[in-house]
Order: sequence, then structure tokens, then C-alpha cells
Amino acid sequence: MIQQTILYLAIILIMAKALGELAERIGQPAVLGELVAGVLLSGSIIGVFKIAPNQTLLFLAELGALLLLFEIGLESNIGEFIRVGFSSLLVSLIGMICAIGGGFLVSRLFGLDARIAIFIGVALSSTSVGITARTFFDLGRLRSREAQVIIGAAVIDDILGLIVLSVVTGVLVTGNIIPFQIIKVAFLAMLFLAGAFLIGIPAAPLLLRIIKRLRTRGMLTACALLFCLTLAYAAGKLQLAPIIGAFAAGLLLTRTEDASRIRLCMKPLADIFIPIFFVVIGMQVQLSALNPFQAQARSTLIFALALIVVAILTKALAGGGVLRRDINRLVVGAGMIPRGEVGFICASLGLARNIITLPQYTAIIAVIAATTFITPILLKALHVKKIEIVPTGEKS
Amino acid sequence: MIQQTILYLAIILIMAKALGELAERIGQPAVLGELVAGVLLSGSIIGVFKIAPNQTLLFLAELGALLLLFEIGLESNIGEFIRVGFSSLLVSLIGMICAIGGGFLVSRLFGLDARIAIFIGVALSSTSVGITARTFFDLGRLRSREAQVIIGAAVIDDILGLIVLSVVTGVLVTGNIIPFQIIKVAFLAMLFLAGAFLIGIPAAPLLLRIIKRLRTRGMLTACALLFCLTLAYAAGKLQLAPIIGAFAAGLLLTRTEDASRIRLCMKPLADIFIPIFFVVIGMQVQLSALNPFQAQARSTLIFALALIVVAILTKALAGGGVLRRDINRLVVGAGMIPRGEVGFICASLGLARNIITLPQYTAIIAVIAATTFITPILLKALHVKKIEIVPTGEKS
Repeated sequence: MIQQTILYLAIILIMAKALGELAERIGQPAVLGELVAGVLLSGSIIGVFKIAPNQTLLFLAELGALLLLFEIGLESNIGEFIRVGFSSLLVSLIGMICAIGGGFLVSRLFGLDARIAIFIGVALSSTSVGITARTFFDLGRLRSREAQVIIGAAVIDDILGLIVLSVVTGVLVTGNIIPFQIIKVAFLAMLFLAGAFLIGIPAAPLLLRIIKRLRTRGMLTACALLFCLTLAYAAGKLQLAPIIGAFAAGLLLTRTEDASRIRLCMKPLADIFIPIFFVVIGMQVQLSALNPFQAQARSTLIFALALIVVAILTKALAGGGVLRRDINRLVVGAGMIPRGEVGFICASLGLARNIITLPQYTAIIAVIAATTFITPILLKALHVKKIEIVPTGEKS
Repeated sequence: MIQQTILYLAIILIMAKALGELAERIGQPAVLGELVAGVLLSGSIIGVFKIAPNQTLLFLAELGALLLLFEIGLESNIGEFIRVGFSSLLVSLIGMICAIGGGFLVSRLFGLDARIAIFIGVALSSTSVGITARTFFDLGRLRSREAQVIIGAAVIDDILGLIVLSVVTGVLVTGNIIPFQIIKVAFLAMLFLAGAFLIGIPAAPLLLRIIKRLRTRGMLTACALLFCLTLAYAAGKLQLAPIIGAFAAGLLLTRTEDASRIRLCMKPLADIFIPIFFVVIGMQVQLSALNPFQAQARSTLIFALALIVVAILTKALAGGGVLRRDINRLVVGAGMIPRGEVGFICASLGLARNIITLPQYTAIIAVIAATTFITPILLKALHVKKIEIVPTGEKS
């Protein structure tokens, strides 16, 4: 078992790095190569290598997701987030409303029941921050205003997504809206963020001062990771996505004087585990359910294609929520396209409770896959164009 | 499940670092604190926290063991190993013969059957390199000649231990010595080591030259880890301990010009995963089976104590195998005391095949635990004394 996981880990690393390098060589972000590596390893195209992610690989991937958001938090600037905060809120709200509406309309056009149509709309509502943040990282533009607007909006999306999901599931299961649920989710989210910042802002420098007085080797690395894991666990306990906790942990440490040393300590860990996250995401794409040569798969494919187009267009509209003129609305719209965790949770929940059918589930997963793959390509293209327009583009 | 592992990981890290720091403060190597942290977390003393290592934690611990030996390989000097090679061989042979003989005699004195007595002797034969190497690291003396003799001897022990184990199991199960088994194990070990060095010495610098031409972020970290995992997997496939593969990988990279950069990349990974390894080892110590207030446990305890004394004395004798006068024989003897993987494998195999009873199994585990805990304390004490004698002691 352990021996097998060592082998899997070695194969995942070699494929991630080989295809990541290939992606860079053909002018794409490395993350695209890692996703493709995952698809190849899942055996859905070629059956030679076939890795089914076991519990351990799923954990390592989750660790990668936490390290990604932790690192993004560490690279970010709280002040900038607050400055663009209102734009983030508008982008999130417009994006969610348009995506729910668009998903609903398309589903109705395909003759689905109103309750199923709403559920599919909700499944497509929330932006997943991972791909976009990583792409900005690969492009060296993580500190750009566009990136800050998108990351802020994606965090709001995650919270709103959970609220909408709990409301809709409540309505579909019990037939009633449960205001208590809305209040509970919103309250816990506020509680977490307020708690993290009220306790964290004074506590982080204090903690770092204590660490400096310790003698054991590797204390800074261990404590920084510990801080990330603790906040991720706390967020998870309060029904939030653990990655929000990891992001908050990064943000809290970014203003301390040790921030650059912490970044340096985390880099090798991030270098190993973040690619595992994206390869494992790629593995979960099951292309065979969308084989155009099978009659049943064909109708699923057409429905999925319609949803994909709407999912992309509605989030692109969200870019219009940006208020400031010095922020590129197209880049923000493109960055909001990827769907992820909330979509997965929604689709799995809907399937388990017989709200949606297996083909409808497959269509939702296809939207997640398509939006995940298209975003790095789109952002890269817009980025190349943008550099031509704004020659003062920063490179980190 | 993932959320629970995040919590466990956080608790393990915090306990490891807190007790590691405490150990350093009272003048002991940090590794001792990590072992105690594991005992506390296993719930065998206090039942408040109780972590049963799941598959993922066991994998992370194994990753820690691999990183430990990889790092030790990276810090080592092939030339020095070859120079002290004959001493290593003698130390290994004397230690193994004495330990098997001692274990056999004690078991016979306690009235056990000759075949059981031989089996218990074999279980106590092989030195486990992890604790000693880590202690030398904590003491800043990993590059001392004593450390090089011990590490070399422990690698030979691992190979000899597997040969002896396969012979004895063969005799006890089929009643015959199977010469083919001996030849097979010895041949595979030689094959691995020869292959690793014949291919690795020219391949490592070539690989590093290729890596330099790659553009993706974190390539050196990923490739170094990949090299370690690949050799560990290969060693495991050839029935050797995977840590020998990891050690060989480190040795191969140590002479390349990028060695210091690789050490720097691996440090944060080692800082996180090595403590997990020692905490998980500590968790596997079940003190309750040796409770002196229970009649049945008492007789096990007395047998275990006799075995522990013999296990320590016989390996201390092994220090006499050192030929050179500039190497401290007492330090070498003390460094050879810890038992580990081979003992575990032997005990589990014996129990599963009804060769030994549960109390005898418990006694073997107690020897592993006691020798593991006593070595850091002993080496620290000898080291303090030695620094007084040889004031040119190096500190890294």
C-alpha cells in the first residue's frame, strides 16, 4: 500500500513536471499541463497508466490546495483587497445571479423541471479560485489589481455559494425555505473571518516573536504550516471551505516582518504539493461519459455544451461589476469562469438525493472540467494582449 | 476523513515541535521529544488525545523516513564511507552475531524452545539507522567518522538482517535451509547497489544539467524528490528497505555541484515530515502491555528487561570492530544499539505464523522501544564527554 503510493507519487510528479514544462514551451501556463497530466493518468484517454486516487493521494492533493491558497494569501496585500472590495462584491453578486439565471434558463429550454433547473443553476454559480490564482501565479501577475478583485470575489462566491446551496437543498428536500439555515451559514462565515482577523492580526507577530526564541530546527516552517492547517481546520469546522482558512492564514502572515522568510520556507512544499492538487483534479475528469459516438452520451454532450457556453458567458458578464477604470474588466470576467468545489458538492448531493439524474450530473462535471481547462488558455491570451496595451505590466 | 487527517497532522506537528523544544532545553536531542510526543498521542499514558495512525499518516511517516535518509545521504561523503568501509563491515558482523547469540541465550534461560530462541535472536539482530542518524544530526556531528562507520554498518545490517530473516523463516516454516533464498536476497541487494551507483554516478549530473534548462517553477525540488522516491521504490521492489534507496539517492547527489541547492530545497520538506516519522514511531509503543501491576504483564516485563540489557550490551560490543584509532569505539557501539524495521517485521511475521506468542511479541517490541529511547540519551552523554577530550569537535 505505502510502496504503491510511493510509485503513484513518483509518476504524478514526473508527469506533472513534464507536461507542465511542455505547456510552458507552447506558451501556456504550467497548470494546464498538470491538468492534462491528470486526465492522461486517469486512464480515460489511454489505458496504459491508470491511477485511481486513494485516500492518501486525495489528502496530499488537499494539502496542495491549502498550500496554494496559503501561498496566494502570503503574496497578497490586505490593503489592496479592501480597496477593491466593493468591486469584488459586485463581481461576485453579478456573476452568481447571472450564472444561476443562465443555468436555469438553459435547463428549462432542454425541458427540465423548474426545481431541477434551479438546482443546476446553483451548481454553476460559484467560482473556484484555485485555477485562476495559479494561472496568475504562472503568469507572474498575482499582485495585479485584476487578480485581487477576482480572489476577493471568489472568496465571497464561496460563502454565497454555500448559503444558496443550503437554501436550495432545504427547499427541494423539505419544500420550505429555512431562514435559520441562511442565517447560520452567514453567521458562521462572518464569525470565522472576524475571529481569524481579530485574533490573528495581534497574534501572528506575537507567535513569530516566540518562534524566534526557539532553538529546534525548522521551527518557522513547521509553525507556518501549523498556522495554515489550524485555520483551514477551523474554517472546515464552521462549514466553510478549508481553503478559505488557508487563505486567511496567508493574509495574516503577509504583513509580518518574517513574511519573506515564510514564503521561502513554504516554496519547496508548495512546489511539490500544488502540482499534485491539479493532477488529481485532472484525474477526476471522466471523458468517456461524453463520448460523441454513443447515442446516450451524445444528448448529454449537447446539454453539457449549452451549459458550458452559458457558464462562460454569464461569468464573463460579471467583469462588468468592476467599478475602477484601471482594472481590465475582460480579464476579471475570464478569471471568474472556473467552477469547482461548490459545483462538485452540489452535483454529488443532487445525485445522491435523486434531485438530478446521472446524465445531468455528468453535464455539471463537464462544465467544471471545461471551465477549468479554458481559463488558463483565455487568461494567457488576454494577458499577452494586455501587455501590448499596457506596457508597464509587472513581472514578479 | 481528510478534515480529520488535517487535524491529526496539526496536533502531531504542534506536539513534535513543543516536546522537541523541551528536549533541547533539558539538554537532549530533539528526536527524543518527538518520540515522547508519539507515546503521549498514542493514548497509552494519558487517554485525552488519542490518535491511531491511519493509512495517510503512515504514508507521511514513511515519506519522513525517506527524507531523513535522503538528507543524511546528501550530507555524507562517499569517499569517507569507503575509507571506513572495512570497519563498518566488522562492526555490522560482530553486532549481528553477538545480538543473535545473546537473544538466543536469554530466551533459552527463560526456558524457550530452541527454534523460538533463534527467532527472537534474529529479531534483535539488525540496527535501525534512523534514530542514530537523526541524533547525530541534532548534535551537529553527522559528518564525524563515528557517524559514517555507524551508517555504513547499519546499511550492511539491513541487508544481512533480511538474509538472516529469510533463512530463519525458511527453516522454521519448511524445515530446510533454502540456499536459493540467501543467494537471491544477496544478489538483489548487490544488483540494486551496483545499479544505483553505476547508472547514478554518470546520470545524476546529466539530469541536473537538463533540469537547469527547464523553465517551470520548482523543478529542482520536484526532481530531487522524484530521484529519492524512484530509488526508494526500486529498493523496495528488490526486497530491500526503501530507506536504503533514499540513502543511495542522497549519496549520488552529494557530489554534484548543485548539492547545496538541493539540500536547501529539501530542508523545509524534511523539517515537516521527519518529525512525523518519529512521532508515529512513538505512537507504536504500547506501554500498557508492560504494566508492572498486572501479573501476566509482569513476567513479560522481566523477559523484556533481560532482552533489553542483552540487546544493548551485544551491540555495544560491536564497537570493538572499529579498526582505526581515531574513531571512538564507545560512540560507535552506542550508535548501533537501536533496533527497528527488521525487528518489527520479524515480530509481526513470527506472531502471524504462530512461531512466537503474544507476550514474546510484546517483549520484542519493548526492546525496539527501549533501544530507540536510550540511544539519543546515551549518544548525547558520550558526545558531551567526547567534546571534552577532543576539543576540535565540528559543529554544522
